[in-house]
Amino acid sequence: MLLITLFLSVVILSSTSDASSFNDFCVADLNGPESPSGYNCKPPNTVTTDNFVSNLRDRPSAFVTEIPGLNGQGISLARAELVPGGMFGMHTHPGASELILVEEGEITVGFMRSEEAYVKTLIVGNVMLIPRGLLHFVLNTGKENCTFTAFYSSENPTFQFVGQQLFGTNVPSYIIAQTTPLDLAEVTKQKARFGGTG
Amino acid sequence: MLLITLFLSVVILSSTSDASSFNDFCVADLNGPESPSGYNCKPPNTVTTDNFVSNLRDRPSAFVTEIPGLNGQGISLARAELVPGGMFGMHTHPGASELILVEEGEITVGFMRSEEAYVKTLIVGNVMLIPRGLLHFVLNTGKENCTFTAFYSSENPTFQFVGQQLFGTNVPSYIIAQTTPLDLAEVTKQKARFGGTG
Amino acid sequence: MLLITLFLSVVILSSTSDASSFNDFCVADLNGPESPSGYNCKPPNTVTTDNFVSNLRDRPSAFVTEIPGLNGQGISLARAELVPGGMFGMHTHPGASELILVEEGEITVGFMRSEEAYVKTLIVGNVMLIPRGLLHFVLNTGKENCTFTAFYSSENPTFQFVGQQLFGTNVPSYIIAQTTPLDLAEVTKQKARFGGTG
Amino acid sequence: MLLITLFLSVVILSSTSDASSFNDFCVADLNGPESPSGYNCKPPNTVTTDNFVSNLRDRPSAFVTEIPGLNGQGISLARAELVPGGMFGMHTHPGASELILVEEGEITVGFMRSEEAYVKTLIVGNVMLIPRGLLHFVLNTGKENCTFTAFYSSENPTFQFVGQQLFGTNVPSYIIAQTTPLDLAEVTKQKARFGGTG
Amino acid sequence: MLLITLFLSVVILSSTSDASSFNDFCVADLNGPESPSGYNCKPPNTVTTDNFVSNLRDRPSAFVTEIPGLNGQGISLARAELVPGGMFGMHTHPGASELILVEEGEITVGFMRSEEAYVKTLIVGNVMLIPRGLLHFVLNTGKENCTFTAFYSSENPTFQFVGQQLFGTNVPSYIIAQTTPLDLAEVTKQKARFGGTG
Amino acid sequence: MLLITLFLSVVILSSTSDASSFNDFCVADLNGPESPSGYNCKPPNTVTTDNFVSNLRDRPSAFVTEIPGLNGQGISLARAELVPGGMFGMHTHPGASELILVEEGEITVGFMRSEEAYVKTLIVGNVMLIPRGLLHFVLNTGKENCTFTAFYSSENPTFQFVGQQLFGTNVPSYIIAQTTPLDLAEVTKQKARFGGTG
Repeated sequence: MLLITLFLSVVILSSTSDASSFNDFCVADLNGPESPSGYNCKPPNTVTTDNFVSNLRDRPSAFVTEIPGLNGQGISLARAELVPGGMFGMHTHPGASELILVEEGEITVGFMRSEEAYVKTLIVGNVMLIPRGLLHFVLNTGKENCTFTAFYSSENPTFQFVGQQLFGTNVPSYIIAQTTPLDLAEVTKQKARFGGTG
Repeated sequence: MLLITLFLSVVILSSTSDASSFNDFCVADLNGPESPSGYNCKPPNTVTTDNFVSNLRDRPSAFVTEIPGLNGQGISLARAELVPGGMFGMHTHPGASELILVEEGEITVGFMRSEEAYVKTLIVGNVMLIPRGLLHFVLNTGKENCTFTAFYSSENPTFQFVGQQLFGTNVPSYIIAQTTPLDLAEVTKQKARFGGTG
Repeated sequence: MLLITLFLSVVILSSTSDASSFNDFCVADLNGPESPSGYNCKPPNTVTTDNFVSNLRDRPSAFVTEIPGLNGQGISLARAELVPGGMFGMHTHPGASELILVEEGEITVGFMRSEEAYVKTLIVGNVMLIPRGLLHFVLNTGKENCTFTAFYSSENPTFQFVGQQLFGTNVPSYIIAQTTPLDLAEVTKQKARFGGTG
Repeated sequence: MLLITLFLSVVILSSTSDASSFNDFCVADLNGPESPSGYNCKPPNTVTTDNFVSNLRDRPSAFVTEIPGLNGQGISLARAELVPGGMFGMHTHPGASELILVEEGEITVGFMRSEEAYVKTLIVGNVMLIPRGLLHFVLNTGKENCTFTAFYSSENPTFQFVGQQLFGTNVPSYIIAQTTPLDLAEVTKQKARFGGTG
Repeated sequence: MLLITLFLSVVILSSTSDASSFNDFCVADLNGPESPSGYNCKPPNTVTTDNFVSNLRDRPSAFVTEIPGLNGQGISLARAELVPGGMFGMHTHPGASELILVEEGEITVGFMRSEEAYVKTLIVGNVMLIPRGLLHFVLNTGKENCTFTAFYSSENPTFQFVGQQLFGTNVPSYIIAQTTPLDLAEVTKQKARFGGTG
Repeated sequence: MLLITLFLSVVILSSTSDASSFNDFCVADLNGPESPSGYNCKPPNTVTTDNFVSNLRDRPSAFVTEIPGLNGQGISLARAELVPGGMFGMHTHPGASELILVEEGEITVGFMRSEEAYVKTLIVGNVMLIPRGLLHFVLNTGKENCTFTAFYSSENPTFQFVGQQLFGTNVPSYIIAQTTPLDLAEVTKQKARFGGTG
């Protein structure tokens, strides 16, 4: 029992019950349903230290699917390596902000709004923020391979690549042509590359 | 796999996996249980475009029960038509703010605090805010029918009508009389109209 | 004084002080600084009913800049009219979900993720949700003018048009060409149209 | 400096800088402006222990105005004493939930929705929740004075008394009569008692 | 049906449907799973007034486990009595702020950051805030028993006692000795008292 | 002007106004006051790309004080190097969760609740979560220097070292001895090392 009349101070530090801490974390039951706040919690007695740990050499991302303990904690990370000229093309993470930390090599990172772009060539040790939800890219503009870590304000960020969104789905080409500055020929060409239909 | 060493830039835009986006939305499974954050999410492969669409001609409200895609998105709307003298009597939406947009005719809208009232007669094109949780009314003070749209900062706003709350439940009349400025005779009369007991 | 020993029930309903309600709303002082939670509040004694009202005929949007009372309330709206073939091209609202309500005419609305698109032709009375932060478009595919209302889960949504983001800033063309599926010739052509430099 | 190469373990526990903790609390500068998130923070070097303490014998409420340290912490409390028949009439706290704890005597507490009422007579030691934003009352139905403590999920709850809202402002009587079940004679009578105009 | 054309004002106050209010509260189904936002909601038709009430004489805490109606409401409370010299030793409530209200006797309460401590001896009627997540203690420094009520900004606060955390688990003693200022002999002595292993 | 009747699709992508995007980020004005939501925003026209970038070689932490663009974004990071036996002793980050990523060497990381400890020896590429607000330590248990990066779910995490909190402030020694399992002699000894008074 949690809150009791305490006669002896030596007793006090062992006075918490087993039940009192079940909200310190909510390790995801990845087999169960999700709600807007995340997965259901695994029963506390089935939680192990390994539910809080993963290894980037096995899986380059440490999201809630790799570390179920991240459920409800609002952070995650991933590591990537890019060859010279390699990149993560224009994309957004709806709802998540991102911090990019260069581990090795050189990359150019930029994010843009309709009015302005914020672009910087980063070297080892540089950290750059991509504000929540804005369009951005990462491009290896150096001569060596580049490794960087990306850290997200979400345990389960999604990646929306503009190229894939525009050319890889079944939205009819004429609609893409009308709602982007591109003409129908360009849209048709790109859809062929991305496997889009319609 | 999401984050990989990328050797060819043409590859980059198709690098997302099927699994990577499952948090972009959480379409409500309306048959399942709810939690404080909303309904559980339907399995992504059962989601269709129609889960994001509804029709005001069939149902005048577009809440999470009509558009299950609203689950966790924090918005909804409804449309109403009022004859001259028709109204939505004094009520609150606990936890939700509301924007009223007049489509046709004229209405008088007001919200009040203990100290002050904010009342305005609105015509076509006028927009008025009801701050979160405050008591308010909408009354057709014009000579024609009036149509308006109400937008809410909740996917599932509730409507608490003061008249119904005071006179339509089983709270004993003498308690209502003591905790409102009304006398017992008035309370008894109103309870008869609203079907309240006690 | 707010909470006192109450001897007479007739006294109870006038017992709140002037100071007790100053958090029911926070009308924006649009001249002052902003913080991550919004604008500073105007002094309560300078607030008028008109701070909660605007007119779409004067300004087609009702954001916090038009209705300062929206500050901190998390909703806003705007109305638009599109000629046949007119549109709002591919864009995002970082952090805001959107409900589109067709008032007149016919529009085709779609949002997309990297994996899939959700597109629908809407007619009068139809309501469609754009989930928070996803890329989307609105296109008048009918033969008449179309009017619709858009409602946002933010008092100050921003509009990020992909065309403008890619071609209207000073990001060097060769970077755009490398991080999109477009070739340098196409990028150069578009930058000329959008006024982008670099 | 916060994060450094540490050669000696005895050094480690004094390695935090003065600046590192300035977000542990944000004591309100009650003279400055407010924003939707609360007051600005006092400079940390002007904060004293007394900014976190108050005395119910001096002021029966412990809100942010009495304990500026409550700013941003989302809780507060107040104590009240009611004579037999004394009460807090029908009111709401927009946005705040409330816990009522009876210290002495007996009270009847109820909250209501349009569909149902939840009413209970409480004695010493009883605790009852009023869910966020719902209409409720507290009435001394006992034969002795009653003392209770009310605890709120807001550092600055407001009290909206329905009687005062309906009859104490300048909303014209005919509008009140039309938007409540009361007739004009009753409204006029009540307005005279509450000092309402119009 | 909720929003309809209303021809008669006397009709208006009974126009809400049974379904319209199911989000006013979410009473915990304590047998079901939890998510980061709390427990699933009980079916509304099984909710009773007693789901919102508890009695401190039966259980000194009123958390979500005692009052399932607290689910998602973000508040709770507990009462404790301390003999002279009795205390709640150094502990934290991760994520929850706390208000302490002295009902009887005298206690000394303090919270601390790495740089500074905020300590006060409180008497009957004093209220003191413990900011969210900070280390603190409560000690009866008077000559009489002391009773106090603690209010939390969480429906399910957990109690992390530093003594128990350091000496009551299976973390090897040499690690505790290295990561605290204590030497191995002291750690070994304390582990024996607390039942820690390793 | 943002929302207009659009006659030509080539016009659409340049239709946003300068004012429309001012909420995409809120770069901290570090000289101004703070509120519970963070610093005030710098005027948009004074924001530069460098407000989003920092360099770990100059400052090992990238918090809002180094990257003012982090204001309101809810993430930050820091890097540390530990010699064998070096450590970050027992501490908490109130309100923030943390992800630890090992860059080089080997560390043992553990967090604990009153009931249980979660401890793991990590090597290069391992990632471990410290749930929000829990007591934890990082200890170089290897034979080489170790470098790791720590990511936080707060733009301004604070570090509360238990040793410093217990022995480095002016809380009287007899109170520390009573509210921890340590005896007065041990407390006095530790206070001498940490510079605590009282």
